[in-house]
Amino acid sequence: MTAETIVSINPTTGAEVEEVTTATSREELEEVCRFAAAAFAQLAERDRAFRGKLLRAMADALEARSADIVSLGVRETGLPRARLEGELTRTAYQARLFADVVDEGGYVEATIDHASDTPMGPRPDLRRMLVATGPVAVFGASNFPLAFSVPGGDTMSALAAGCPVVVKAHNSHPALSVLVHGILRAAADSAGAPVGTIGIVHGREAGTLLVQHPVISAVGFTGSLEGGRALMRLIEQRPTPIPFYGELASLNPVLVTQAAAAARGTAFAEGLVQSLTGSGGQLCTKPGLVLVPHGPAGDALVDAAGALVAAQPAATLLNERIRDGYEEASEGLRRIPGLRVVAEGENPVGQGFAVAARLLSMEARDLVGAQIGECFGPATVVARYAEAELVDVLDSLPGSLTATIHSEAGEDIHALVRALLPKAGRLLFDGFPTGVAVSWAQHHGGPWPATNTQHTSVGTTAIRRFLRPVTWQSAPVDVLPGELHDDCTSIARRVDGQLIVPAVPDREGTR
Amino acid sequence: MTAETIVSINPTTGAEVEEVTTATSREELEEVCRFAAAAFAQLAERDRAFRGKLLRAMADALEARSADIVSLGVRETGLPRARLEGELTRTAYQARLFADVVDEGGYVEATIDHASDTPMGPRPDLRRMLVATGPVAVFGASNFPLAFSVPGGDTMSALAAGCPVVVKAHNSHPALSVLVHGILRAAADSAGAPVGTIGIVHGREAGTLLVQHPVISAVGFTGSLEGGRALMRLIEQRPTPIPFYGELASLNPVLVTQAAAAARGTAFAEGLVQSLTGSGGQLCTKPGLVLVPHGPAGDALVDAAGALVAAQPAATLLNERIRDGYEEASEGLRRIPGLRVVAEGENPVGQGFAVAARLLSMEARDLVGAQIGECFGPATVVARYAEAELVDVLDSLPGSLTATIHSEAGEDIHALVRALLPKAGRLLFDGFPTGVAVSWAQHHGGPWPATNTQHTSVGTTAIRRFLRPVTWQSAPVDVLPGELHDDCTSIARRVDGQLIVPAVPDREGTR
Repeated sequence: MTAETIVSINPTTGAEVEEVTTATSREELEEVCRFAAAAFAQLAERDRAFRGKLLRAMADALEARSADIVSLGVRETGLPRARLEGELTRTAYQARLFADVVDEGGYVEATIDHASDTPMGPRPDLRRMLVATGPVAVFGASNFPLAFSVPGGDTMSALAAGCPVVVKAHNSHPALSVLVHGILRAAADSAGAPVGTIGIVHGREAGTLLVQHPVISAVGFTGSLEGGRALMRLIEQRPTPIPFYGELASLNPVLVTQAAAAARGTAFAEGLVQSLTGSGGQLCTKPGLVLVPHGPAGDALVDAAGALVAAQPAATLLNERIRDGYEEASEGLRRIPGLRVVAEGENPVGQGFAVAARLLSMEARDLVGAQIGECFGPATVVARYAEAELVDVLDSLPGSLTATIHSEAGEDIHALVRALLPKAGRLLFDGFPTGVAVSWAQHHGGPWPATNTQHTSVGTTAIRRFLRPVTWQSAPVDVLPGELHDDCTSIARRVDGQLIVPAVPDREGTR
Repeated sequence: MTAETIVSINPTTGAEVEEVTTATSREELEEVCRFAAAAFAQLAERDRAFRGKLLRAMADALEARSADIVSLGVRETGLPRARLEGELTRTAYQARLFADVVDEGGYVEATIDHASDTPMGPRPDLRRMLVATGPVAVFGASNFPLAFSVPGGDTMSALAAGCPVVVKAHNSHPALSVLVHGILRAAADSAGAPVGTIGIVHGREAGTLLVQHPVISAVGFTGSLEGGRALMRLIEQRPTPIPFYGELASLNPVLVTQAAAAARGTAFAEGLVQSLTGSGGQLCTKPGLVLVPHGPAGDALVDAAGALVAAQPAATLLNERIRDGYEEASEGLRRIPGLRVVAEGENPVGQGFAVAARLLSMEARDLVGAQIGECFGPATVVARYAEAELVDVLDSLPGSLTATIHSEAGEDIHALVRALLPKAGRLLFDGFPTGVAVSWAQHHGGPWPATNTQHTSVGTTAIRRFLRPVTWQSAPVDVLPGELHDDCTSIARRVDGQLIVPAVPDREGTR
C-alpha cells in the first residue's frame, strides 16, 4: 500500500501545483512523539532564560526568510501579499512577546506558604508554581497559515511554557508548513534546543493518532465545530483524557443602536463591509450577525452596506472544502423563513475557489428559537430589531468570541452590556471585531462553541493552557525550582499571602 | 408514580434511621435552576465586598450550629466526632479564606493595555479580568460531608467567584446535607443574597439532569472514576459542553529510599499506618502504594507496618456501596500474580458497613504493564523494589494527586523527583499525603485520573475554576467593572505589561 500523497493546491485555479510529501505513517508518528517526549525531559532541565532565547531565535529566523515565506504563502492560500506580510510581522512579534512573558516570570504564579500554625494545627511548608504539561499537539488553521499554524500562537505559547510541539500541518498549506517547520527547527538546533522540540506530521489519520498518543499532554485546535467535536470524542476515549483547547466557531454579533444608526449609519456600513470581506471573510472574528434597528436610519444603513457588498469582487477562498461549506451555509440561511438576500457581490468565474460576498436580512425576533451558526466566508446576516424585543433576542444568541455595541455618547447601554457579557469573551465598543491585537490584556475565547470559556489562544495568557500547578511540600531546597527558593527576588511571587513584585524589572530571569 | 424516597442510614448498623426527603423531580429541578439563573444576574450587580461578607456570614452560621452539625454527621457517616469537629473548623476557615481572596482582589487578574502603537499598527484600549461563569453544580462527596459537600470548597469557591451553587446532596449524608443547606440558605438570606444563591437537589436522576441543564456553567465533582466518566459523557452530549472539574481517583505512591528505610523504618511504618487507616482509609490522598526497597531494612519496615495493621480494629465505612467496592478492589488486588496479604486487621462483626484493614505486598517490577488502581478504604499495597528498576517502575505509575519521597539528608534524589513530577500535583518530602492544608500555595489536583491537571479543588486558586476571562475593547468607563477603571489602586493589576501592587493592603474592596 502506498502512502497518501500530500499535495499543494493553487486556490485561485484549483490546480495541483506540487506533491509536497506523503502522509505521516503510524511508525513515523511514533518516532516524532518519541523525540517530543525526549525533548520534554531535556527542556525541563533548562531555565526560563533559555526558552526566551529560543523564541527570539525563532522570530529572527522567520524574519530572515520573510520573502520566501510570504511568496509561498500567497501562492498556496490566495491571501493578499500585504495580509501575509502583516501576518509574518505579527507572528514574529508574538514569539518575542512570549519571550518577554517567560523572562518576566510572573506567569509561573510562584507562591510560598511558610510552615505555620493554623486553626487546624500546624501547616507544613508549601510552595506552588506552574510547570509545563508535556508535549503538545497543535493543529494548524486554514485561515492563518502563520499566526495560527506551524509558527503561530499555540506553538509559541507551548514552547514558552516548556512544552515540545508536534504540529499537524493543515492540508491547505502543506508546502508553507514544511518550509516554516524547517526554519523553526534549524533555529531551535542553532539555539541548542533538543531534537524533537518541534515536530510535524501530515494527513488526517496522523492527526487522529496524534491526539490519542500517550505522550501528548494537551491539544490546541482551530477549526470547524464538527472537526473539533470529533477530536474531543477521541480525547474522551483515551485511557488518560487530556485538555482540549478548541476554537470552533463564532457568530460575533454586532449591535447598532437607533442613535448610532442615525448618527453614522454610512460610516458603520463601510466599517462593517470592510470587516466582513477582509481575508475573504475567513476570520474567526468576522461579524456574522448585525443587529440593526427597524426604521429609516436602519434602512439607510442596510442600503449603504448592500451597495458596498454588491460592488465587492469575487473572493478566493482557501480551499475547496471551505468554498463548498460557504455555499452550503449560505443555502442553509436562505431556507430560514423570511430571510432575503439584500445584495450579492461579483459572481466568480473560472476554476478556482472563488465566491460572491453576500448580505442577507431577516427579522431579529425570528432568531429566538432558531439559532443561526457561523457562515465562514464573506457573508453576514442583518437582523432587524424593535427596541422592545432586543434583550430577548440577545439572550437567545449562541456563545461567541466577540460581541460589539455601536452606540452614541450619553446612551444608557448597561442593559445591552449585561445581555451580551455572558455571550462573549471580548466586548467591543464602536469598533469591529476583526483584527485581534496580541497583548497582555487580550482574550480570544468565549462560551461554547467559540471555545470552552476558560482559555485564550491569543495574548500572553495563552501560555496557561500548557501549564499545570505543582505544589512541593516540605521540599529540600536543592530539589525546588529556582523560582521557589526563598531568595529569588527577580519575579513576582505571593509569599505568605502577600503579592511581592521586584522593585526594578529584572529581565535576566531566575538565578 | 410516587417519588423515590431519600433515606438516612446508620453505617454502624446498616439500618435506615429516617426518611429525609424525596428525590427531586424534573419540575423541582427546573425551579431550582431558574432561581439559580435569576440569582446569578443579581449577584453580578453586587461587588466583591458583598461576597466577602456573604462567605463570612456562612462561616459564622456553620460555627453557631456546630454541635447539631457534628452530632448528625457522626450519626450519618460513622466518622469519629473529633474528625467531624476538625472538618467543621476547616470548612469555616476555608469559607473565610475565600472571603480574604475576594477582598484582596488579585484573583481577578485585572490587566489594562492602554491604546498604543505596535509593529502591526495602532492597538485599541484593552482591559481584561476574570468574571463569574454562571450557576455551578456541586456534587457532594461521600467522605467529606462538610469540607467537600454542601458547605465545602467547591461551594465556597464558586460563591466567592460570584456563581450561585446547586448542590447534588450525596446519598450517604442526606440529612446532614439538608440541615447544612438550611443553615447556609438562612445565612445567605440574612446577608441579603438573592433567593437561589444556594440550592440543593437529591437523587441520581436529578444529578444527571442537573449537569445537562442549560443554565449550569460548570460542574465540581469528587467521586469515583466511573461516576465521573459518566458525568463527563453527559456533559459532552450537551449542545453547549461546559467545564467539568472532577477529582476521580488517586493512588498516591509513597517511596522510601534504602537509607530512609534503614534510618527510620519503624517511625515510617507508624506514620504510614496512621495515614492509611485514618478516616477508615476513605481519603483521596490515602497512600495506596508504598515502594519499599528489597533487603533487611525494607523487611523490617514491612514487618512493623504489618504488626500495626494486624492490630487495627475494624473500620466502619461510609456506606454499603463503598464497603462492597473495598472488598471487590481487595479481591481484585489479590488476583495479581505474586501478591500476598502481609497482614489483616480485626474482621468486622455485626450488621454495619465495617471492614478489616489490609497490608498487601508484591514485587515492584510487576507494576510495569499491570497498573493497580485506587482501593478506597484502609488498604495499601507495598511494592518491593530493586534500585536498578526503580525509575522504570515510577514511569509506569498512573497520575495521582500526590507523590511522596522519604529519604535521608545528603542523598541525591533528583532522579526520583524527575520521575515523580509528571505523575502528581503535589510532591511531598518525608511526610504523608493525607491532611491537605487549605492555603494559597496548596494544589490538590494532578494528571488524569486524579483530575485533569489544570485545576485544584483545595486552596485559594480553586476559585479560578468558576471564572472566565473577558476583555473589554475601547469601552466607555461607565460600563467597565470598577477593577478596570484607571484610578482603581486597591488591587494588584498588570498595566501596560507591568505588575503593580497596592502599597498598603486595602481590605475595603473596590470602589
